[in-house]
Amino acid sequence: MALDRLIEKIAQLQNPTVAGLDPKLDYVPGFIKEKAFAKYGETLEGAAAALLEYNKGLIDALCEIVPAVKPQCAYYEMYGWQGVKALHDTIAYAQEKGMFVITDGKRNDIGTTMQAYAAAHLGSVTVGGGNCIPFGGDALTVNPYLGSDGIDPLFGICKEADKGMFVLVKTSNPSSGELQDQVFEGGKTLYSAVGQLCEHWGEALPGKHGYSGVGVVVGATYPEQLAELRTALPHTFFLVPGYGAQGGGAKDVAPAFDSNGLGAIVNASRSILCAWQKTGAAEQDYAKAAAQEAIKMRDEIVAETGKITLG
Amino acid sequence: MALDRLIEKIAQLQNPTVAGLDPKLDYVPGFIKEKAFAKYGETLEGAAAALLEYNKGLIDALCEIVPAVKPQCAYYEMYGWQGVKALHDTIAYAQEKGMFVITDGKRNDIGTTMQAYAAAHLGSVTVGGGNCIPFGGDALTVNPYLGSDGIDPLFGICKEADKGMFVLVKTSNPSSGELQDQVFEGGKTLYSAVGQLCEHWGEALPGKHGYSGVGVVVGATYPEQLAELRTALPHTFFLVPGYGAQGGGAKDVAPAFDSNGLGAIVNASRSILCAWQKTGAAEQDYAKAAAQEAIKMRDEIVAETGKITLG
Repeated sequence: MALDRLIEKIAQLQNPTVAGLDPKLDYVPGFIKEKAFAKYGETLEGAAAALLEYNKGLIDALCEIVPAVKPQCAYYEMYGWQGVKALHDTIAYAQEKGMFVITDGKRNDIGTTMQAYAAAHLGSVTVGGGNCIPFGGDALTVNPYLGSDGIDPLFGICKEADKGMFVLVKTSNPSSGELQDQVFEGGKTLYSAVGQLCEHWGEALPGKHGYSGVGVVVGATYPEQLAELRTALPHTFFLVPGYGAQGGGAKDVAPAFDSNGLGAIVNASRSILCAWQKTGAAEQDYAKAAAQEAIKMRDEIVAETGKITLG
Repeated sequence: MALDRLIEKIAQLQNPTVAGLDPKLDYVPGFIKEKAFAKYGETLEGAAAALLEYNKGLIDALCEIVPAVKPQCAYYEMYGWQGVKALHDTIAYAQEKGMFVITDGKRNDIGTTMQAYAAAHLGSVTVGGGNCIPFGGDALTVNPYLGSDGIDPLFGICKEADKGMFVLVKTSNPSSGELQDQVFEGGKTLYSAVGQLCEHWGEALPGKHGYSGVGVVVGATYPEQLAELRTALPHTFFLVPGYGAQGGGAKDVAPAFDSNGLGAIVNASRSILCAWQKTGAAEQDYAKAAAQEAIKMRDEIVAETGKITLG
């Protein structure tokens, strides 16, 4: 199970956090953009080259501190297929540096099409007599609205190729309650119904450390629901976005963890990516500023959750 | 409103259908693959070149018969960034030939990230002093699980750049009911609650022909729900997948239409793409076979729904 690999990496680095790689061009230091635009012009290709160099600097600075990165597909698609190539190259570079890669695509579709997404983001495809790896992430975020047809096609790849998934349960955004908090007849909310499905789906992908290969996304901005879901879903690992710029703090995410300091990985994107802008660091020191912010976040969270021990 | 453009094109061609461009390599005739592999090898680049040539042949054959195409992102992502470049080139080619392009990505995310998806698939991005168009589709399918934060960022682009959206309401797959058919306290199903939100969101994007810029996806495989939603959502245009290979027929989709023969566009993918394989046509005639299947589908549906008149 790929979430075992993630959990082991978290324990090794004693750091239950993931750096979101959501590289808007506005976040990228000027010297990187100037170099890329000089070579490729003010084009999508130039933008993509800038993103990739920015990401590589971040990965170099973070790879011995943070166990995982979470590139957000939207910020690469925003720069066309050229941006999507930068996504591919970012995933490959992070893996070369030993990081676990969660591709944040929130993909969802009917069965046959979900099979294509699974091959695209976690698996491989046959081309003529050969086999090619399109993106090769380690885990993919998915949206549950279509039910098990949108999840099942991931199981084969998760088993065979040692990959994982994170299903949206309670998202971090202000309007997440419009549908997710609605209560079904019988008293369950939509988010808790999805959570229970995930705990059930996870039985087919049991892990070595008490958590299955079917993780869930639960926002740091809803600490009560985090605590409720931690109790209700004892074998389900949490990806917790919303830390930092979105407003969640260390005390908010603490309920996502078990007594071994395991059970969740907390994501921050903007606060790490833009640390150089916030702290007033020289732009050449953007990666160093990101690493300092990542260490601060790790220390804040571990102070609440304690030493990480493999269960 | 971009759905006005779609509706006018439907009336012009008297054809309320859309061809899904979901090009698995298995569907592509051998002569196209051989040519592409000879040039680029059995690589993702070779696969992408084959998909693009296949799509161009289909678009040439369909553009005077069918008003729109719906490329499914998964089948391009499956062939890496090279496949995503073929998606870009397919969208551009279809628009050159006068077709309306619905990018089927079922994208969803929190507000700031959804803004990036909106720019990626419908809008433009600033790079240095210039403005670039990443993919440039005419409408995008989106998933409602995150509530209005995942929809709002599309409104600006829909107004300014004359684009539209289709929100998943009741999907065509067998397990769509696992969540979508669950009943909330008060008696509404999840899908009907989402449908009502869409009718409400559409008030901000009113159209010339009685339908707003916020369309919804409702599967041909659930004709009762189609009829129920048509009545409940009088100003909401339907994208109806599931025709043909998934099992929906002309009588199943008829309830999606109003008395002017408007209100919906019906998608078929496999039955059109693979017509040459099913009919035993020569592989060189794959596009002709697709056009014949598209005409058959149009005639079957229009026989049920009648002449199309702009309301």
